Amino acid sequence: MTSTVITGVGELTTNTDDPGTFTGAALVLDGDRVVWVGPETRAPEADTRVDVEGRAVLPGWVDSHTHLLFAGDRTSEFAARMAGRPYRAGGIAVTVDATRQASEAELAENLRRHVAEATAQGTTCIETKTGYGLTVADELRAAKIAATEVDEVTFLGAHLVPPGEDTDDYVDLVCGDMLDALAPHVGWCDVFCEQGAFDADRSGRVLRAAAERGLGLRVHGNQLGAGPGVRLATELGAASVDHCTHLDGSDVEALAESDTVATLLPACDLSTRQPLPDARALLDAGATVALASNCNPGSSYTSSMAFCVTTAVLQMRMSIDEAIRAATWGGARALRREEGDGAVGVLRPGARADVHVLDAPSAAWLAYRPGVPLTHSVWRAGHRVRRG
Amino acid sequence: MTSTVITGVGELTTNTDDPGTFTGAALVLDGDRVVWVGPETRAPEADTRVDVEGRAVLPGWVDSHTHLLFAGDRTSEFAARMAGRPYRAGGIAVTVDATRQASEAELAENLRRHVAEATAQGTTCIETKTGYGLTVADELRAAKIAATEVDEVTFLGAHLVPPGEDTDDYVDLVCGDMLDALAPHVGWCDVFCEQGAFDADRSGRVLRAAAERGLGLRVHGNQLGAGPGVRLATELGAASVDHCTHLDGSDVEALAESDTVATLLPACDLSTRQPLPDARALLDAGATVALASNCNPGSSYTSSMAFCVTTAVLQMRMSIDEAIRAATWGGARALRREEGDGAVGVLRPGARADVHVLDAPSAAWLAYRPGVPLTHSVWRAGHRVRRG
Ligand SMILES: [Zn+2]
Ligand SMILES: [Zn+2]
Repeated sequence: MTSTVITGVGELTTNTDDPGTFTGAALVLDGDRVVWVGPETRAPEADTRVDVEGRAVLPGWVDSHTHLLFAGDRTSEFAARMAGRPYRAGGIAVTVDATRQASEAELAENLRRHVAEATAQGTTCIETKTGYGLTVADELRAAKIAATEVDEVTFLGAHLVPPGEDTDDYVDLVCGDMLDALAPHVGWCDVFCEQGAFDADRSGRVLRAAAERGLGLRVHGNQLGAGPGVRLATELGAASVDHCTHLDGSDVEALAESDTVATLLPACDLSTRQPLPDARALLDAGATVALASNCNPGSSYTSSMAFCVTTAVLQMRMSIDEAIRAATWGGARALRREEGDGAVGVLRPGARADVHVLDAPSAAWLAYRPGVPLTHSVWRAGHRVRRG
Repeated sequence: MTSTVITGVGELTTNTDDPGTFTGAALVLDGDRVVWVGPETRAPEADTRVDVEGRAVLPGWVDSHTHLLFAGDRTSEFAARMAGRPYRAGGIAVTVDATRQASEAELAENLRRHVAEATAQGTTCIETKTGYGLTVADELRAAKIAATEVDEVTFLGAHLVPPGEDTDDYVDLVCGDMLDALAPHVGWCDVFCEQGAFDADRSGRVLRAAAERGLGLRVHGNQLGAGPGVRLATELGAASVDHCTHLDGSDVEALAESDTVATLLPACDLSTRQPLPDARALLDAGATVALASNCNPGSSYTSSMAFCVTTAVLQMRMSIDEAIRAATWGGARALRREEGDGAVGVLRPGARADVHVLDAPSAAWLAYRPGVPLTHSVWRAGHRVRRG
C-alpha cells in the first residue's frame, strides 16, 4: 500500500483537542494508519496526492450500536405504528423467526449489504450484535458471520426471552452454555434491561457471567421508561449504556461520575415516537455522549449517522461540534477504541486511516443541510472505499 | 428520443386514485411523456427495457417552494442559532448583498448546482423565487436566469424592505416598475406576509397588482406567529400559502373550504427551532397539503424532499401515503400542474415522464429508513438524469 497526502482541506476535524478543528491543514496516510497531520505548507511528500478542493474532512463515523445480523424487514409493522394503528406482529420475534430460517450465506450477504451502505455514508467502524438467534447454534452462527465483516461484535443473547420459554431457564442458558460458546468469538456482552425484557437481577447475572469470561459490558437501558439500566451499567463498569431516553437526575449523575458512555439513538426514538433524550443534561453534567444508529429492522432501520447528527443538532440542542464528536470520538470511546495505536474516531499520527470527506466546506453542513447526502469520499484503514 | 418500458416494479405509486399504489405494474415512457401504465403482463413493447428489479417507483418530487437565486451561505448564522447564541448578521440582507455582488454567471452556476443536487435526489419539478435582488435590475436578472433552469419562476420582490428604504415607497416600486419589468418573465407573484416583513394591506396591494398583470398568486404566511397570511391567500384565491406553522381554527377552515394549498416546510421549522405545523388538523379538515423544501441559505438550506417526507411521517403524524402524495401531487397542485397534458406529480398516460426509482421495495422506506439516500434512478421529461 502506498502513502497518500490529502491536501486542500477546507476544515479538518481531528478530535485531538478542543475544538479540534483546523483550516489550512493536510494529512498523510500510509498503509492503514494516519502518519502525519499538520499545516499543508509543511506537509511531507507522499506517493499519491489527493486535493479535496476545500472540502471538510473528519474522522469516519463510529457506529457503536447496530443489529445487522438479521433477515427480513418489518415495513408493515412500521407503517402501522406511524398510522397509529395497533399491530400485533410480535416485534423482535418476527425477526428472530426470519433470521433462524435464513441460510448462512443469506445472513452474510445481508450484513455485507448493510455494511457497504453504511460505508458509502462515511461510517468506517461498526459494532454489531447477535440477538436474533436466541439458541446456542443460532447465536454462534451470527457471531461468526459478524466477526468477518465488522470491527466489534457483541453477544446479545439476552435480547428477549424466546416465546414459550421460561425466563429463568433462558437466563441460565445465556449465562452458561451460550456464553461458553460465544465468548471466544465476541468482545462484548450486552443485555436488554427493560420492563418486558430482562429485569435488573437477571440482567446483572448475565453481565457478571460475561465479565468473568473476560468480555466487555454494554447495556440497553432506559429506552421505554425509567428503569435500572443506567444504574446497573455504571455499577458494573459497562463501557456504554445505550438509549438513555428516560433518565432521572440520579442516572445523569451516575453517568457523569462514571466511565460509562451514554450512547443516544435518536433515530430509534423518532421511529418509535419516543421523546428525544436529554443530551443537554448529560453534556452539562459532564457525561460522555455517543451517537449511534441502532440500525435494526424493527425500531430504527437507518444506517445514517448523518441523520443522527442532524437530529441531535436540530432537535436535541447539541452543538454541531458536540454532535460530530459524539458520532466519531464518542462512539470510539463507547467501544474503548479511542486511544493508542490504531485508534478510531480521531485523526492523528498512529490512528487508523479512517477518513470522511464531505461535499461541504465545513462539518456544520451536516446539520445546516439536513437530508442532503454529503459524503464525498471515504478511506477505511487506508483503503479508499468511496470516491467522490 | 426512443421509448422505454420500465419493468420489475416492486410498488408503483401513481397518485391517480386512492391509494394509487400497485404491484406487478409496468410503465412506458415515450419522448417526454408517460404513454402507458398497467400490469406488466400486458405491457407493450418499447425500444428499451429497464428492469428495476423489485424497486419502488413513484413520480419525481415536485418541490414547489425554493429560493435558489442566491450567492454565499450563512453557515455561521446557522451555527450560532443552533448554539442558542444571538447573532446579528442581518439575515436575509446578508444574502441580498452577496447576491447583488455576484456575477450573472456565478448566480447561474449556483442555481445549476442546486438544481442538479435536487435532481440527483429525485426532484424533477422545481419552483424557485427571486427576492434577493430587491431592485428592478437585480430582480429581473434573477428571473431571467431562473427561467432557463427551472419549471416555475416566482417574483418575490416583496421579500423584505431593503434596509434604509421607506416601506410604502418600496411597495410602490414593487407594484409598479418592478412588476412591469418582471411580469413577462415569471408565472407567479409571492409576498412575505409576516410581522416585520409586509402587513396584510401591503401584501394585498402587491398580490392584487400581480393578479392584474395575469400572474398566479402565492403567499408566505403564518411562519413565525399567527397572522393574516392564510386569510389573505384564501380571499385572493392564491394557489398556495406556504409555511402555515401557526394556524388557528379559522385558518384551517378557510384552507379546507378554498382551492388554496397549504404548503408545509418542515425542514425550515426544524432549522429555525419553530414548532412543526399541524398537518393532521389540515388533512382531517379536508385541506390540500403539499410538502416542499424551502431551500434557501438562511432558514432551510436543504434540497432533500426525502427529509421533508421523513419528518412529516415521523413527527407530524402524516401517513406515509399522505406524505408522499404531498411531496409529489400536492406540490404539483400548488403549482397548478397536476392536471392535463404534461402534468407532473402523477404517473399516467399524458403525464410528463418524471420517474423516481428507489433503492427500496416500497416508498414506505423513505420514512422507515430515515437519512439513508434511497434515490436509485431518475427520469425527467423522459431523460434519464440519474442512473442507479
Ligand atoms: Zn439496540
Ligand atoms: Zn420561502
